[in-house]
Amino acid sequence: MYDLKKSVALVDAALDCYLAPAHTFPREIHEAVRYSVFAGGKRLRPLLTLAAAHIFGAAEEAAMPPACAIELVHTYSLIHDDLPALDNDDYRRGRLSNHKVFGDAMAILAGDALLTRAFELLSIEGQKVLPDQTIVRLVAELGSAAGAAGMIGGQVVDMQSEGQLPNAETLEYIHRHKTGMLFTCCIRSGGIVGGASSSQIKRLTAFAEHIGLAFQIIDDILDIIGDENKLGKKVGSDENKQKMTYPALYGMEQAKRKATHCLQAAREELNEFGKRADRLLWLGEKLVEREY
Amino acid sequence: MYDLKKSVALVDAALDCYLAPAHTFPREIHEAVRYSVFAGGKRLRPLLTLAAAHIFGAAEEAAMPPACAIELVHTYSLIHDDLPALDNDDYRRGRLSNHKVFGDAMAILAGDALLTRAFELLSIEGQKVLPDQTIVRLVAELGSAAGAAGMIGGQVVDMQSEGQLPNAETLEYIHRHKTGMLFTCCIRSGGIVGGASSSQIKRLTAFAEHIGLAFQIIDDILDIIGDENKLGKKVGSDENKQKMTYPALYGMEQAKRKATHCLQAAREELNEFGKRADRLLWLGEKLVEREY
Repeated sequence: MYDLKKSVALVDAALDCYLAPAHTFPREIHEAVRYSVFAGGKRLRPLLTLAAAHIFGAAEEAAMPPACAIELVHTYSLIHDDLPALDNDDYRRGRLSNHKVFGDAMAILAGDALLTRAFELLSIEGQKVLPDQTIVRLVAELGSAAGAAGMIGGQVVDMQSEGQLPNAETLEYIHRHKTGMLFTCCIRSGGIVGGASSSQIKRLTAFAEHIGLAFQIIDDILDIIGDENKLGKKVGSDENKQKMTYPALYGMEQAKRKATHCLQAAREELNEFGKRADRLLWLGEKLVEREY
Repeated sequence: MYDLKKSVALVDAALDCYLAPAHTFPREIHEAVRYSVFAGGKRLRPLLTLAAAHIFGAAEEAAMPPACAIELVHTYSLIHDDLPALDNDDYRRGRLSNHKVFGDAMAILAGDALLTRAFELLSIEGQKVLPDQTIVRLVAELGSAAGAAGMIGGQVVDMQSEGQLPNAETLEYIHRHKTGMLFTCCIRSGGIVGGASSSQIKRLTAFAEHIGLAFQIIDDILDIIGDENKLGKKVGSDENKQKMTYPALYGMEQAKRKATHCLQAAREELNEFGKRADRLLWLGEKLVEREY
């Protein structure tokens, strides 16, 4: 039986520990960092890493450094994306965004600190539970997924395409990179911790890519039909800025069908792992269906 | 005979290679990243890493990934520091700063990309020339030196103390962290690549801390007496903002004596290494005396 609440509590405890006393000075940046890390995130990314590691029988403890490192990278990207120079969002998950509370300068530095801490904890905390060879692979995975050829590249293209007419190729690039590569990194990292073979890593990667795309399509749909309080941000804000979205490009019904198709393809990738993959599959489904 | 020009050329070639084709899309962020990395920097930090590795007979090739990773971290910190939300500097080394050319959003993302690439290259390029154990130590060193308890912490305290009266303890904290810890990281990383013992790493650390402090004092002095063209930034800009500086706190003559004293203490730390430490010592001296 998959105890989701327990897993979330373990992730929260680990994050609290990784961002604790030794790093409390200067106090203000520590506060700014913790404000966004403990802002009600559902820990989807760390849970995906733990669930992927579980397939191969790895202990949660061993998967925790990469799981939390990825969560810190995700959090830094939200802080920087919300800045006035970028998306200029005042709210995030129904709370004031980091720069509205701590100022633009501190928000920039808090993001920088989180990104740096991600790699630091991967090495320092990682050494306590993982072989060096595994840590080096995890650093490379996270660096590639989060860098200019990954998440940052997606953000750049997204920024540049605002106000332009939708184009299927560009839309796919943005989502695969801005959101998808870090999703994929979560799941691949779990496999790496668990000692997955290269063909198993390929299966996990394909699963992650299908789920990531389905997630993004549903995100676009919810942004249009969703309800402001539930999401904690202004409904239709992406549309107002003329961002390219799946519903804008394909129409609402076609976008929904595309999401369902992705989810089915994702399921098939996990067949060979049997029941040990149930957690990962369940998480992927809940994620796409927005029931978690 | 120490061929400085050759070492600089090797560093430039490595940086060019580490920031090349595979990372060319999206083109604009690649351009923004390269604009600041190839902006006439003297490659002091990479040279320090190579010189420290040389003490222990390590090949330049083996020391190049950490040497260049640190240079990328240094460059990202300059891009973010120059942003309007932070120091708001329009010029850097006599050229327009990154955000003046590419805009604030792209400058933020270019800094993020450089920081991420630093860790990525340390793992991916590092694996070609270094054992995994060494790479994990180097990632931990760089993460600690660059993070909230290191360089970013120094920047935070510096920012918070603008407009306040100088205070010796705060001044020392800022310099040790904002500039000093990355200097120290360069030199320690060279030692780690070379397989230095822990007592040898301690010597290198002490050398680095003395040199870093001397460097910062001279930097403050030059900011007052220096000449705008030579430094490529507005003379007295730190003073205008009422930043705490050594001359402001101790007076000009006392500040100069403090720098000389630091340099002598640094020299003594390298005694036990004999002639193989000549490059590192020479670099440290030139650096402090601003003859390189």
